[in-house]
Amino acid sequence: MDIADRRKANPDHWRLAAAIRALSMDAVEAANSGHPGMPMGMADVATVLFRNHLKFDASAPNWFDRDRFVLSAGHGSMLIYSLLHLTGYEQMSLEQIKNFRQWGAITAGHPEYGHVEGVETTTGPLGQGIATAVGFAIAEESMRAQYGADLCSHKTWVIAGDGCLMEGISQEAIGLAGHQKLKNLIVLWDNNDITIDGRVSLSDNTDQLKRFEASGWRVLACDGHDAADIDRALTDAASGVDDRPVLVSCKTIIGYGAPKKQDSSGAHGSPLGAEEIAATRAAYGWEHDAFVIPEDILADWRAIGSRGKTARMEWATRVDASANRDEFARRISGEGSEKLAAAIASVKEAAIANKPKVATRKASEMVLEAVNPVLPETLGGSADLTGSNNTKTKDLGIFSPENRTGRYIHYGIREHGMAAAMNGIWLHGGFRPYGGTFMCFTDYARGAMRLSALMGLPVVYVMTHDSIGLGEDGPTHQPVEHLAICRATPNTLTFRPCDVVETAEAWEIALTEQETPSILALSRQNLPTLRETAGENLTAKGAYVLREASAEPKVVLMATGSEVEIAVAAREALEAEGIPTRVVSVPSMELFRDQDVDYRASVLPAGTVRVAIEAAVRQPWEWLLLGERGREEKSGFIGMADFGASAPAPTLYKEFGITAEDTVALARKLLG
Amino acid sequence: MDIADRRKANPDHWRLAAAIRALSMDAVEAANSGHPGMPMGMADVATVLFRNHLKFDASAPNWFDRDRFVLSAGHGSMLIYSLLHLTGYEQMSLEQIKNFRQWGAITAGHPEYGHVEGVETTTGPLGQGIATAVGFAIAEESMRAQYGADLCSHKTWVIAGDGCLMEGISQEAIGLAGHQKLKNLIVLWDNNDITIDGRVSLSDNTDQLKRFEASGWRVLACDGHDAADIDRALTDAASGVDDRPVLVSCKTIIGYGAPKKQDSSGAHGSPLGAEEIAATRAAYGWEHDAFVIPEDILADWRAIGSRGKTARMEWATRVDASANRDEFARRISGEGSEKLAAAIASVKEAAIANKPKVATRKASEMVLEAVNPVLPETLGGSADLTGSNNTKTKDLGIFSPENRTGRYIHYGIREHGMAAAMNGIWLHGGFRPYGGTFMCFTDYARGAMRLSALMGLPVVYVMTHDSIGLGEDGPTHQPVEHLAICRATPNTLTFRPCDVVETAEAWEIALTEQETPSILALSRQNLPTLRETAGENLTAKGAYVLREASAEPKVVLMATGSEVEIAVAAREALEAEGIPTRVVSVPSMELFRDQDVDYRASVLPAGTVRVAIEAAVRQPWEWLLLGERGREEKSGFIGMADFGASAPAPTLYKEFGITAEDTVALARKLLG
Repeated sequence: MDIADRRKANPDHWRLAAAIRALSMDAVEAANSGHPGMPMGMADVATVLFRNHLKFDASAPNWFDRDRFVLSAGHGSMLIYSLLHLTGYEQMSLEQIKNFRQWGAITAGHPEYGHVEGVETTTGPLGQGIATAVGFAIAEESMRAQYGADLCSHKTWVIAGDGCLMEGISQEAIGLAGHQKLKNLIVLWDNNDITIDGRVSLSDNTDQLKRFEASGWRVLACDGHDAADIDRALTDAASGVDDRPVLVSCKTIIGYGAPKKQDSSGAHGSPLGAEEIAATRAAYGWEHDAFVIPEDILADWRAIGSRGKTARMEWATRVDASANRDEFARRISGEGSEKLAAAIASVKEAAIANKPKVATRKASEMVLEAVNPVLPETLGGSADLTGSNNTKTKDLGIFSPENRTGRYIHYGIREHGMAAAMNGIWLHGGFRPYGGTFMCFTDYARGAMRLSALMGLPVVYVMTHDSIGLGEDGPTHQPVEHLAICRATPNTLTFRPCDVVETAEAWEIALTEQETPSILALSRQNLPTLRETAGENLTAKGAYVLREASAEPKVVLMATGSEVEIAVAAREALEAEGIPTRVVSVPSMELFRDQDVDYRASVLPAGTVRVAIEAAVRQPWEWLLLGERGREEKSGFIGMADFGASAPAPTLYKEFGITAEDTVALARKLLG
Repeated sequence: MDIADRRKANPDHWRLAAAIRALSMDAVEAANSGHPGMPMGMADVATVLFRNHLKFDASAPNWFDRDRFVLSAGHGSMLIYSLLHLTGYEQMSLEQIKNFRQWGAITAGHPEYGHVEGVETTTGPLGQGIATAVGFAIAEESMRAQYGADLCSHKTWVIAGDGCLMEGISQEAIGLAGHQKLKNLIVLWDNNDITIDGRVSLSDNTDQLKRFEASGWRVLACDGHDAADIDRALTDAASGVDDRPVLVSCKTIIGYGAPKKQDSSGAHGSPLGAEEIAATRAAYGWEHDAFVIPEDILADWRAIGSRGKTARMEWATRVDASANRDEFARRISGEGSEKLAAAIASVKEAAIANKPKVATRKASEMVLEAVNPVLPETLGGSADLTGSNNTKTKDLGIFSPENRTGRYIHYGIREHGMAAAMNGIWLHGGFRPYGGTFMCFTDYARGAMRLSALMGLPVVYVMTHDSIGLGEDGPTHQPVEHLAICRATPNTLTFRPCDVVETAEAWEIALTEQETPSILALSRQNLPTLRETAGENLTAKGAYVLREASAEPKVVLMATGSEVEIAVAAREALEAEGIPTRVVSVPSMELFRDQDVDYRASVLPAGTVRVAIEAAVRQPWEWLLLGERGREEKSGFIGMADFGASAPAPTLYKEFGITAEDTVALARKLLG
């Protein structure tokens, strides 16, 4: 059916969709950059979705029981910006649309969570949206199980493109969703057969329907430009005839209606140009100037935007009537729990009393054993390293299709999918997700971990086996550069605690955070309890004096995690030689950087020899070795300059020169 | 069929496989760490593969036309070590097996490329092996197309576990292999239904056969403990009845024969223990002491190891007789080409003459246009950003099932798969692969990029859009921490050239390298030609004086890439104020670190104000700001402290304070 026939066949629908298309091409043109093709191609699907299916109320964007809409193909950001404007989201003024991709506008090139209500998650890096949506759907199932369908019952709708489906993370997401039978997750595949390099067939011939089916999805298809057919498919998808998540293949034409550029990569990532826009307007029968939406069309869209108001009011009434009202409110607010402090204190005090010698991964488990029973919002998991990450505590139960109240997720061997799902779980609301893998496999999860930081989501990464201290598994499993990677990433708290007390303190901070993800780098090997006081959360200062020198310090030894023990032993040896030596534990460089200059100088005074000890690369330490009130300090580093090796951990520490003896020798040399 | 019946049914096979099993459990026990279950489960499949199918000659491990064997499930390293020892690879002595996982042994916890001949690629991080194998298979097809089946015709066999198939990278690999119809790639899936956390069904229900079929694979299945059935399946897989890659599902039992631990995760990752080993020996009917292989069994294995000798000799005869003998020898040696220098010089000289103002991504294309026609070993590609990465040159042709002589690969939206494939292409021999994506999406490829560095493979990553300079696409696409990430990674050359000349020099180094991967961080935006001389490769020094001060410098401005232009402008302003200012371009920190201390001090003399300018985080700069012959320098940094934003690039530079004016102001302030 050609475009004129489409218009005639369903003029009422056509004009609504045309408004999206016009705004999208106009905004991209005005910005002189952007991606018009995808919004033009998916306008019909999006119109039917918002008009007939999506549960939302534009006047209350944060209504908890709304359906979530995730634009996984984030380059098509003008699709969602158009929808938000047309349906009446207050923040999305026409002015913002006109300022698409400009400094200070909320209409960033790709949809950014936190810039504007209605954007549920940041997308753009392909595949992240669909994988994050799995987290939304998990959270919805879990919350519904905990509070009942009266308070929580909604769907997660995703628009994903070929790029999303080609990225590896999509398979992790699909596999996890299929296994978990997330029936309220519906993915609308913008099946336009075009990627940036050309036709999809240049690089892929995957039968996506068959692939999704193989991972336990229900699959449907529709003509993505036929409103009735779209409506049929979406109705079917939402019907919940069985418990599988649903993929709907929407056959579309990218840049639909642009006579010269449609159905080609030319419509994907650059403005159409004035001439092509004029021709497209003609093809659409859209006779309005740039950015002009006729009153009647806008009114119809605004009516769509308020479609969900009644449902929202009814939900609010149900919440008010609920016995769980207060706790539900606390949960969905994301606020911390007042019960946390006591749980943390109990772990710290027991550690001070009993001086356990345990790995910090075990310490983390001890913390979680205290925390999980009193914080029902935690939702734990591991990427198939449960026994190694020590992430599962006795009370949690396994989250599964058979047990939706379980609070522990077997994410499978899917680090990237896990990290993205954790982002989605937090974004959904109601939970504080944490998940574990080996520190080295932050590599696999980087894409989603960066989004945790960029979006400001306080998810917790439990990263065990954090150095050569893991021993025999060898260099493929031994992180060397990963602390540097985490510390180089903005808005990321990297903790490397040295014992049970610091581990508990790091967890306390992580579970109190509102805007920053935490990475806990934890040892495989046992470590002594070094802290002598349980009171103040000293980890919150980032670095602090763990062992004072016997006199004005001549040497300051800085260390983190498993190397603090080495620093303490080196201090004893240096003190025995009459060299006053201080040990500074540095559980979080970021938090230390946030301290005022006086505190920093009091911890790291000028005029001493400084030696940093960390079984990792030197790069993040330079600023601490440098000193800040002058540069007269002599300093040195005990750590790794290359990849590790396969051998028992004590051998590795000795062979790589990360011992108390090496530290003492370096300090002596620097003293001259 | 129980184990006793298996033994009786095929005693000749059984004893060969039992030798693998015994060595594996003995070595893990002696090391007191490791993974016995997988070698015990896959011993039958591996025995049939090596005995009847794999083309190899243990006396010539590097024979170019051997079949490649990739143990993607690298934790089962004792499987390959056993095979190498039994078949007679000289390096793999029994002593090495006994020293499994010990310092200095070649028998690392996971198979490490370069430690021992016969290990074709480093594995352990799951999914890497199967994705690297796709590169082997691509290289084989390409080499065969270029030199004929007489010189190159072999298969790539992979053993992959459930973990490999659950990782997202596997989908990228599967999709790419299916699309490219890599019929000589055969994956043997160790279908044992166990992961570390328990049964696979805890986290996944994917129908793997259907999934592989959906991506264009032929799928077969066999009983992984029935030698005849395995042989049938492998014969079928190798028959090449059609042009699809082949998956063989081998139904196995992990820890096969260990009475208490088999078929459970208890057999996966820890020693069986003396008692269980004794019981297993009894079940196997294996009456020999630990590490003892009876002469007759060893003799049979050694005969298997020399099975391929005749084929190898015939191949050598064909090579000798080939008209292409010398070039073929050069190609498979991996040596650089003497033609490179002239090609690079031509680009540099033209740039000095014409002073083009182009993006360094365009500069990179200019280099490739000169290099690709004279270096037939280059094999380029992009993860669906061809027009943005400027990676395709006119002469290359597209590598596809229809055109195996094409030298450009449309990798699809598969950054991780591309990086792993590049590793495989280099490891195979005959090629210098390069591939492009956006710098920010190093995140997606990190797992494989780390292996490039760990293995020491001189592949080239063409990473364009390397800063906020990409503008409107916004923070999801703007790398900020990625230069720090690359620079923190051992054995990685990170280049950020400032103009065409430096870009050409970086390429010259990258294409000459033998043991280190290169990352080229290239601008989206146009940059002036700043270099004034074409002679010496100054980039090889890592940093050098680009603009000298008018007198003894009071200020040294350091910068890379697109910010060198800013440094040059700031210098002019400072000089105009009478402040002698030097500009140092720092295209590669790693190479600068390798220079002797005198050179470094000559470039960055003591006693000046130092300002570094880079539109990225400060972390990697600290050591250069510090100075090395004393610490009296005052220094400062002009760069990014947080994520970027969506706006035109010039606005972003201004708003984030990365301009000549900001630099001048900071230098003035530091001068006091």
